[in-house]
Amino acid sequence: MSNEVVAFQGERGAFSEEAAYKLLGRDIQVLPCETFEAAFQSVAKRKASLCLVPIENTLAGSIYENYDLLLQNDLHIVKEVNLRIVHNLIAFPSTTLRNLRRVYSHPVALAQCSRFFSRHPKFQKIPFYDTAGSVKMLADERPADSAAIASRIAAGVYGARILQRHLEDHHENFTRFLLLSKKPHISPRANKVSIVFSTANAPGALFKCLSVFALRDIDLTKMESRPLRGRPWEYFFYLDFVGNVNKPPCQKALEHLQEVTTFLRVLGCYESAKR
Amino acid sequence: MSNEVVAFQGERGAFSEEAAYKLLGRDIQVLPCETFEAAFQSVAKRKASLCLVPIENTLAGSIYENYDLLLQNDLHIVKEVNLRIVHNLIAFPSTTLRNLRRVYSHPVALAQCSRFFSRHPKFQKIPFYDTAGSVKMLADERPADSAAIASRIAAGVYGARILQRHLEDHHENFTRFLLLSKKPHISPRANKVSIVFSTANAPGALFKCLSVFALRDIDLTKMESRPLRGRPWEYFFYLDFVGNVNKPPCQKALEHLQEVTTFLRVLGCYESAKR
Repeated sequence: MSNEVVAFQGERGAFSEEAAYKLLGRDIQVLPCETFEAAFQSVAKRKASLCLVPIENTLAGSIYENYDLLLQNDLHIVKEVNLRIVHNLIAFPSTTLRNLRRVYSHPVALAQCSRFFSRHPKFQKIPFYDTAGSVKMLADERPADSAAIASRIAAGVYGARILQRHLEDHHENFTRFLLLSKKPHISPRANKVSIVFSTANAPGALFKCLSVFALRDIDLTKMESRPLRGRPWEYFFYLDFVGNVNKPPCQKALEHLQEVTTFLRVLGCYESAKR
Repeated sequence: MSNEVVAFQGERGAFSEEAAYKLLGRDIQVLPCETFEAAFQSVAKRKASLCLVPIENTLAGSIYENYDLLLQNDLHIVKEVNLRIVHNLIAFPSTTLRNLRRVYSHPVALAQCSRFFSRHPKFQKIPFYDTAGSVKMLADERPADSAAIASRIAAGVYGARILQRHLEDHHENFTRFLLLSKKPHISPRANKVSIVFSTANAPGALFKCLSVFALRDIDLTKMESRPLRGRPWEYFFYLDFVGNVNKPPCQKALEHLQEVTTFLRVLGCYESAKR
């Protein structure tokens, strides 16, 4: 995977960049993008060979915008990775725990470190647009008595140091990321499938769809619904299940599903990440 | 329902206030709250008798924060209402379509009126924290050449006038709101049930849960999943279905569901809104 250009949303040092290194090693080039849409577009327009986007967090839930973008863009899921979200207190040498007063980060990160702030009532939480972006701002402006909360690698990217690790309240804080490519690539070891479908607006329609998996003892790992724009109170269903689209039980299930859905698309077939 | 105090999130004139009048008539008192959590809490602490919160929009999807708050708070759904979201251009008398330059509103409302802004390239979009709040700001500060995009009733609340109606790109833009009370109240006409449950983490678990409805020809109208905090990759499922908890098919389905779930709570049984 060396020489790949991997796009992600956020500044250099974002958790997405940490996830990209975990999945693909350090031998990649990264392309930070302002929005998720721009990260998808950079692959569609061949400015990047791959993009890595978060799809769900075990505390905050799904990243719904990326479910919508999966449907709107013609990219394929080729890998996934789970990253444990570890929040670090990051500052430049003039700042110590003793003289620190202001802590910058994304509001979600600040909220996930509430016990740390309870233990340090003199620290003022200052919401910022991005976790890694707050370290970047410290690097540019060097405000006195200030630190940021961000990923481990953000400290390295901007030459700052980590004053304290594991600021997060919950250790069971994981984000699942999907690696997307313009071309489908199905490894023989692929054992997970992501699909999206819609059904006729009739009683029992969703039950019929799930029966094609239950009848074959195929395990579902995630289900999500999103509104079908222009058809109020109808939905797209996103489903992840265990299997390989080139192997019989899963092939048969998808054939069967095609019969009972009004729309069906395979978003990818890939090796599932360790849990 | 007169003399009821109804809490909602947002400033006076919010779409939630418009929905409250549509559902309960003009004979109510309203209590604007800064956050959804504060709206729930005002009922729990008896500062309001009811609260009205949005649960899904046909373009943007579910309001996931309110799904989580339904589980965290012990309130009951007693009614629902669907409101068509009509965006209006609102200004004070010194501002006309001719001298208008700046248009304030919530970023989501600005995005939903993109065709209006394409037709009027000289109008500058200015993101603001709230739709009705932008009319309130105009009332307080009277900036020159400025208007706001907000609900019909926001104009009335702040004594402004509507320069143009129906700025929204999509007419199929509806928001569904739930009315919540401290006490359950199940009308004999109630024909819709909302529940939340979790299942054992085993293959076919969700299929078994849905079978209790399919076996009895009970129609599901909405399904949503949210993460189970502290148990990564497990989920709560929220389900709306047609029925009355005091009538046999639905009673039996819930008894049956109790057998195959690890957690089950009825969030309310109420009359379904017109679609």
